[in-house]
Amino acid sequence: MSAAISGMRDDACGSVLEGVPGLSFNRDGMVGLSGSLLALAQRIDAAFSGLARVMGAEAHDFVPVLAASDLRRVDYFASFPQLATIPVTLARDDENLREFARRNGRHAEGSLTLAELAPATALLPPAACYAIYASLREQNLASPRTLTTLGTCYRREQHYLPLRRQWCFRMREIVHLGTAESVEGFLEEARDQSVALARELGVSYTLRTATDPFFDPASSAKHLHQRLFPTKQELVTADGLAIGSLNRHRNFFGEAFGLRFGGTLAHSACLAFGLERWLYAVLAAHGRDPRSWPGGAE
Amino acid sequence: MSAAISGMRDDACGSVLEGVPGLSFNRDGMVGLSGSLLALAQRIDAAFSGLARVMGAEAHDFVPVLAASDLRRVDYFASFPQLATIPVTLARDDENLREFARRNGRHAEGSLTLAELAPATALLPPAACYAIYASLREQNLASPRTLTTLGTCYRREQHYLPLRRQWCFRMREIVHLGTAESVEGFLEEARDQSVALARELGVSYTLRTATDPFFDPASSAKHLHQRLFPTKQELVTADGLAIGSLNRHRNFFGEAFGLRFGGTLAHSACLAFGLERWLYAVLAAHGRDPRSWPGGAE
Repeated sequence: MSAAISGMRDDACGSVLEGVPGLSFNRDGMVGLSGSLLALAQRIDAAFSGLARVMGAEAHDFVPVLAASDLRRVDYFASFPQLATIPVTLARDDENLREFARRNGRHAEGSLTLAELAPATALLPPAACYAIYASLREQNLASPRTLTTLGTCYRREQHYLPLRRQWCFRMREIVHLGTAESVEGFLEEARDQSVALARELGVSYTLRTATDPFFDPASSAKHLHQRLFPTKQELVTADGLAIGSLNRHRNFFGEAFGLRFGGTLAHSACLAFGLERWLYAVLAAHGRDPRSWPGGAE
Repeated sequence: MSAAISGMRDDACGSVLEGVPGLSFNRDGMVGLSGSLLALAQRIDAAFSGLARVMGAEAHDFVPVLAASDLRRVDYFASFPQLATIPVTLARDDENLREFARRNGRHAEGSLTLAELAPATALLPPAACYAIYASLREQNLASPRTLTTLGTCYRREQHYLPLRRQWCFRMREIVHLGTAESVEGFLEEARDQSVALARELGVSYTLRTATDPFFDPASSAKHLHQRLFPTKQELVTADGLAIGSLNRHRNFFGEAFGLRFGGTLAHSACLAFGLERWLYAVLAAHGRDPRSWPGGAE
């Protein structure tokens, strides 16, 4: 899912969410769901999971932390430094911890005063699918595989809006690994199944060619390549919200993670849905009354 | 759930997990579940949720990020600096991002070379229940409330073992807010329901009085208070693994978050289960063959 959304009308956000029961949030990026709204979010992910099952996907679940070394394989830090959220801890020596404790007591104000940090070796996942490639690294697949996971993801943005653009959000991905041909079959089915999913949830979207939000497009060979050979299509609602994407990776992840199929580098593709954005789209389509939501009130 | 577990026999870990299908992990703290093992983890959390329902708990869901200002209310940084995982981002100016990109390209090695960081204003949740108190801050409750959430939590430890002690793990909590009397009723029911849950999953534990793992116990008034007036009981399996805890908070969170009940500070208590630890305990009790797990193979 692209983080750079052109033509988005942020002022539409308030009116859609006004009076929706069970939504709590604050300026620091916390978002909470409860009651009928939580049940609706769970029904939406159940619909994603149903689609994944129809597509023959195996379910996987990963804790949301990735090794920096795995992200280096895809040159993540040079491509998207502006999105990165890095989980850091304090250097372990007692004097350092005591200093941090002293400076961040209950009466301190503003942002945290950091002390010396332990070496940073991880990234919070910017997308759900990296964990899948990393877990299959250096494998030679016996047959094409389709896998699905619901990931907790973090992307730093210029500003946040609950359900539309969160620092932390959930992304359901369905990933296919195989050959150039099996990838085309997967993408065709993914397009069809996405249409059926949207119908089931009463949401409308159009497909739009897109590029990933590279930090430095002008100097990025990958960005130029995406422009010349489009590999990304976004599912975009009428008010400009990208609620999902279809991504053809060619053998990019196969090469990065040493993933082979029948001796040659595996090709891959993925279908990604932003859970909170679908929740927003369902609310925009059906209104704030739980009785008019797909599946009705809890 | 206490992070400091005395008498744990780490060497027992390997043999319990050896040959368990569907478990993947690496030294960097990544843990993945799939197949029957993922289904078992889901059945265990369904059992937790069933217990929460019996106890009348409303379900809540929060993205795993907390405002530092909310943790200061409970003096978290002075009490547990050694556990903290802080999500940081890079200062946004282009030169800084470019510098970070340059130093962390695909051929870099070892830990990340950080550039200038943006102000750190958040903490990754060290426990699931903080989000609940924060979301209810400054409220005057009309009646006692019981709430539940499954939280993604992060605690930095000296070393990690999959399912037993992870950097990132899931914690199901059932939290009660009310009066000193309603809290006692909650804790009594929580003890009974935990016994029934363990029986359902074929797991044995004993209750043990414990204290939270304060960084500097000698100088901590709260630690002394916990020793003099025990408020924490852990559910501990035969091999020393704390799989859950019962916590009486008195009016500590009521005071910290301005939570009132009938005009006076609310009392609170919680029942916490470590999902991966219960998964470990179920595997230790039933072996690696999915056909012998509670609920059978998927």
